[in-house]
Amino acid sequence: MTIWSKINKEILFAKKIHNFFENSSTTANGKKSLLALCISSKLPANSRNSMSTQIQKIAILTSGGDAPGMNACIRALVRTGIYYGFEMWGVTRGYDGLIRGDFKKMDLRSVSNIINRGGTILKSARSEEFRTEAGMEKAYQQLKERGINALVVVGGDGSFKGAYHFSNKYDVAVMGLPGTIDNDLYGTDYTIGYDTATNTVVEAIDKIRDTADAHNRLFFIEVMGRDAGYIALNAGIAAGCEDILIPETKTNIDDLVVSLKKGRANRKTSGMVIVAEGDEEGGAYEVAQKVKEQFDGYEMKVTILGHIQRGGSPSCFDRVLASRLGVAAIEGLKDGQTKMMAGIINNKIVYTPLTQAAKLHSDMDDDLYRISKILSI
Amino acid sequence: MTIWSKINKEILFAKKIHNFFENSSTTANGKKSLLALCISSKLPANSRNSMSTQIQKIAILTSGGDAPGMNACIRALVRTGIYYGFEMWGVTRGYDGLIRGDFKKMDLRSVSNIINRGGTILKSARSEEFRTEAGMEKAYQQLKERGINALVVVGGDGSFKGAYHFSNKYDVAVMGLPGTIDNDLYGTDYTIGYDTATNTVVEAIDKIRDTADAHNRLFFIEVMGRDAGYIALNAGIAAGCEDILIPETKTNIDDLVVSLKKGRANRKTSGMVIVAEGDEEGGAYEVAQKVKEQFDGYEMKVTILGHIQRGGSPSCFDRVLASRLGVAAIEGLKDGQTKMMAGIINNKIVYTPLTQAAKLHSDMDDDLYRISKILSI
Amino acid sequence: MTIWSKINKEILFAKKIHNFFENSSTTANGKKSLLALCISSKLPANSRNSMSTQIQKIAILTSGGDAPGMNACIRALVRTGIYYGFEMWGVTRGYDGLIRGDFKKMDLRSVSNIINRGGTILKSARSEEFRTEAGMEKAYQQLKERGINALVVVGGDGSFKGAYHFSNKYDVAVMGLPGTIDNDLYGTDYTIGYDTATNTVVEAIDKIRDTADAHNRLFFIEVMGRDAGYIALNAGIAAGCEDILIPETKTNIDDLVVSLKKGRANRKTSGMVIVAEGDEEGGAYEVAQKVKEQFDGYEMKVTILGHIQRGGSPSCFDRVLASRLGVAAIEGLKDGQTKMMAGIINNKIVYTPLTQAAKLHSDMDDDLYRISKILSI
Amino acid sequence: MTIWSKINKEILFAKKIHNFFENSSTTANGKKSLLALCISSKLPANSRNSMSTQIQKIAILTSGGDAPGMNACIRALVRTGIYYGFEMWGVTRGYDGLIRGDFKKMDLRSVSNIINRGGTILKSARSEEFRTEAGMEKAYQQLKERGINALVVVGGDGSFKGAYHFSNKYDVAVMGLPGTIDNDLYGTDYTIGYDTATNTVVEAIDKIRDTADAHNRLFFIEVMGRDAGYIALNAGIAAGCEDILIPETKTNIDDLVVSLKKGRANRKTSGMVIVAEGDEEGGAYEVAQKVKEQFDGYEMKVTILGHIQRGGSPSCFDRVLASRLGVAAIEGLKDGQTKMMAGIINNKIVYTPLTQAAKLHSDMDDDLYRISKILSI
Repeated sequence: MTIWSKINKEILFAKKIHNFFENSSTTANGKKSLLALCISSKLPANSRNSMSTQIQKIAILTSGGDAPGMNACIRALVRTGIYYGFEMWGVTRGYDGLIRGDFKKMDLRSVSNIINRGGTILKSARSEEFRTEAGMEKAYQQLKERGINALVVVGGDGSFKGAYHFSNKYDVAVMGLPGTIDNDLYGTDYTIGYDTATNTVVEAIDKIRDTADAHNRLFFIEVMGRDAGYIALNAGIAAGCEDILIPETKTNIDDLVVSLKKGRANRKTSGMVIVAEGDEEGGAYEVAQKVKEQFDGYEMKVTILGHIQRGGSPSCFDRVLASRLGVAAIEGLKDGQTKMMAGIINNKIVYTPLTQAAKLHSDMDDDLYRISKILSI
Repeated sequence: MTIWSKINKEILFAKKIHNFFENSSTTANGKKSLLALCISSKLPANSRNSMSTQIQKIAILTSGGDAPGMNACIRALVRTGIYYGFEMWGVTRGYDGLIRGDFKKMDLRSVSNIINRGGTILKSARSEEFRTEAGMEKAYQQLKERGINALVVVGGDGSFKGAYHFSNKYDVAVMGLPGTIDNDLYGTDYTIGYDTATNTVVEAIDKIRDTADAHNRLFFIEVMGRDAGYIALNAGIAAGCEDILIPETKTNIDDLVVSLKKGRANRKTSGMVIVAEGDEEGGAYEVAQKVKEQFDGYEMKVTILGHIQRGGSPSCFDRVLASRLGVAAIEGLKDGQTKMMAGIINNKIVYTPLTQAAKLHSDMDDDLYRISKILSI
Repeated sequence: MTIWSKINKEILFAKKIHNFFENSSTTANGKKSLLALCISSKLPANSRNSMSTQIQKIAILTSGGDAPGMNACIRALVRTGIYYGFEMWGVTRGYDGLIRGDFKKMDLRSVSNIINRGGTILKSARSEEFRTEAGMEKAYQQLKERGINALVVVGGDGSFKGAYHFSNKYDVAVMGLPGTIDNDLYGTDYTIGYDTATNTVVEAIDKIRDTADAHNRLFFIEVMGRDAGYIALNAGIAAGCEDILIPETKTNIDDLVVSLKKGRANRKTSGMVIVAEGDEEGGAYEVAQKVKEQFDGYEMKVTILGHIQRGGSPSCFDRVLASRLGVAAIEGLKDGQTKMMAGIINNKIVYTPLTQAAKLHSDMDDDLYRISKILSI
Repeated sequence: MTIWSKINKEILFAKKIHNFFENSSTTANGKKSLLALCISSKLPANSRNSMSTQIQKIAILTSGGDAPGMNACIRALVRTGIYYGFEMWGVTRGYDGLIRGDFKKMDLRSVSNIINRGGTILKSARSEEFRTEAGMEKAYQQLKERGINALVVVGGDGSFKGAYHFSNKYDVAVMGLPGTIDNDLYGTDYTIGYDTATNTVVEAIDKIRDTADAHNRLFFIEVMGRDAGYIALNAGIAAGCEDILIPETKTNIDDLVVSLKKGRANRKTSGMVIVAEGDEEGGAYEVAQKVKEQFDGYEMKVTILGHIQRGGSPSCFDRVLASRLGVAAIEGLKDGQTKMMAGIINNKIVYTPLTQAAKLHSDMDDDLYRISKILSI
């Protein structure tokens, strides 16, 4: 059996699996898992790189909000690139640096002792100019000048959109890697930085618990997540919060008040409510205000965790994830893939078209939400 | 379609998938994933509880080596049990306490403020007596006396064997939960405590890196893992170790020396080698000794991380995992399951027969090992 | 030489030292040090307990804002009390619990495994009722009923005032211990909880630095300190902040802007300004607003660290401090002292009258402020 | 009053104080404090630099075992040096780099973002060659060649001896700074790195406590301290260890066994004994072995914390200490001091002749040892 016939067979089989589960009671998550397995790492011809020349030099940039593990990812990209014989270049300050020609050649030394550091040695920035034709043209000239014809972008969905358009226009292969604490990208179970951010949140809430418990207070704690409640939902369960307010579910202040009153009646002497910044009832200040109007059983305090969630030494999980994805990005480019995001689904490397990764959002885990309700009785 | 016909259809389908992949090139990991999905959460009749009486009271014990997250798991078990109307009992000191009748009734207060604590409030112990007929009989009498007819055991494979034999002999439903830092159980992608242990190891090695780097030293760091190299492999990648020695692969001292010499030639001024305690060339001391005989390019130091790996406040990941599995154990018992271990595969709850969970070992991730080699160039 | 003549000699000598340095150029800090040594641990008769009966039972309460190390302090009080043969009682929820009779007898078990925990197992509260005659009378009756005639209060200056008045009115010996993260009490170099709070702040700012550095941003970080800039000054130096705004010094927004512009000109790509909440120019939001009006060289972000500063496992320093002070409080009561606060000055136990500890504030360290200016060039 | 007459008066007064306390009952610690205050920061003529030329260029090196805070210290030295107009040079790998001419010029950028990092960017090494006449001569030529005539050495007593001899021989001003986790230097209350090391030890023992408590085990934990028990004594109190074995006191295995048996009888279910590596009964393995021969009430485990004690991000305390001492070193050199170590005694900068700092050891705190005994009942 040749490799292509095998792939075709796998795809055919995947469709069958898809249809079967479509008609069964499997959860959304289960479906995603199976589909992901079936999309598999071997992709059909139309997503393959048809560049006129072979890749020899690869540039890396980090873009959008920084996330812990970006440095571990840069290290893996550089080391893997060198391992496979590519010349590796770093671009400082994202697309902005690409336009301005802020490049440096990267060798093994360049990425020594960075695996454990938060932030990104390549710095990040948002670039308005890259959204213009002129900006993209300048960026391309900078790459061309140096003979670089592949680009790895570590960032979120905004960054992927830019990469996609750029690659459509110019003869440059692009590969995206999911680097954002929000975990809201389609095409990967986990984004780089998310695990560390949840640990940071949980450690902070553990500290607040000490003082909440000592004082019979009710705390409203706001965490990051404009569109996605991943951090709030997971950290809220892990920190034992009384309630979890996220954008994906309808927040009902009346229900919240009932639940807090019940907790009070059960002689709970303190409480903590975690609020994703994007909750439709507002951030922690607004929610606390609304609760206060209906219930004053506790002294209420508000904490906004803010930018500490973006920093810190990455967790083991994030470093391994970043390392695996860094290897996958280079190997994907080497195999001729382009306009894809490398992600991990069910512990397996999966390449998803950038258009999908940038457009679709990761689903909320309904089961986890249900569990959070059971555990907060 | 009735639920039973649906399940039968799912099982039939699972077999097909199994056969298909058995003959394809899918990795061990991919196969495990698919199989797990197909075993599914709905199980056939022969694994169902055929107890004469309905479960009303459930006892919990922790057994074997303790692991971070066991307390979060106890909390979830107690809260979920109460949520579903069961009476919940804690047994102190594992099977030993079961034999001696060391029980306490658990209410919501009993598990307040423990989600963030390492160790186990129920304490753990190994019991020789429980391996005897007489010991099991005593244990059963203790349960019978209190009208308890279900038991949740949080522990590793040794603990599961005991639970299985006990349940075969007596009219007690048992459910196992994977609580061990080693991550070496079949039937779950992650065991409770493993994620925290890897973070503890990585933080320790980060500290050693500071001093290794300041002094041009070579460190051999021994981590837990008698039969499994999970901790060593993941923490070794995350900490940027030069080499990783694990029981699952053949360790070749000559190759290690060649690689260290190469690093030295590349002007690496320091290095760290992580060694799982179960490596067939011996622990860190033995390996360091063997390397020293062939190469003295560095000053060599040995560190045995030891029991700090078992303690500490659990990570967000472990707390969420422990919470989900605690809910799953109670819901499994409620649905009539017994002699099963609740685990998570591909982010989905899966119940695996205790016999399998206790006998089979989790496979090493070959791809991760390959990656570790690429990144240590 | 009898003990009394020796003490008198020491006091006489202390006066000489005092006079000498009063006329010399020694710094405020140097003077405080010498005076403290001379006040010494042996005190004159008028501060001695003249209670009608011998102390046999001692109650402990924590009051005011909680601080890491309070539990280590409770443990030391209970263990030392038992060591010297006293019966030890814990009062829950501060003076409020004293009034309501919320007492529990404490034995060695009561304080097991609490040395490492934040918060306070005795909980804390502010009590309006204790400020009334009626409230104090109720509190006294609760103590009398149980035969308790000594009270240890762990808290800040407000708590000490209450203790002082109570002891003046009733036949109860009182001893204060400095438990507050603000480090603003006269009579001790360090208060319990301050060292841990500074570490918490520094760790948070280290995380913010990662993202500040990745993005060329200017952060304004607000820390606790209504009247005192200790936390801001020390954590600001330790975290390498560009500027430090504290209540003890005149904050000049114009100067701040000049300094930030200079930093910008020196190609500093990011910056962090730490602001004590009690700064006369306002908290971090207000300061950021005022700076923005004059300078927009950076994207500006504000972070309010809030209550995470009160929690967390205490540092080694705080645990040792809390342990020493716990021992000192019991030994002071045993030696017949009352209405005193036990503190540590120049690594030596010193007892200061509660009236002074509650009224005077600790001086700012001028030299440290000077150093912060040198290092932020 | 001229400055010199004032100093003379202070010295005269210091002698009086000295004599007074010599004949009184003040503790060793009290005496040290007073003496230190009196030695004061203004020193008599014979310890002043009599170099033929004015200092213009200053070199820095780190030597001996590395310690957390060394980087914060390098940063403070460089920034303060530049603040006062000196040209600052870094020497890599201690005296060895001095001999080989491994110098780099340091500017403000060179020390960006290092305040929070463990280890030392200048690396450290022990040098045999610097103990020879030839080695010193080479080192001097390297300095002379570059016009550098002052040297700051951050390290321990061995490093200070070298600096002292070097300065006696050549026209180079030297200033020592106490950088070692052992806290065993005369002339300072705290050495750079000691506070962080104690926190690292306490955090590790907290983790071991989790598992000790879960299993009824007795742990023997070995910490650094060849000649000094500072780390063991303070961390042992802070971690609530049952017993503390240090070089400064006679360890009696029989007494230890009696105390452990008593703990066992009191139904303590676990225990931890901290052992300084330099204890005369041997390290943790030897002590555990000896105890086992007399008492088998517990399962016994040994942990050697090893080199993790040298690394890690420095605590707030260590960073402030390192910053203050860095400023003090430059200001001391600027004021013409040489062959001194800058330290902090009673929160005041004190310059102590290198000969004393290197020869005398810091005293054990008897009172702390007494407290450890009270608290372990």
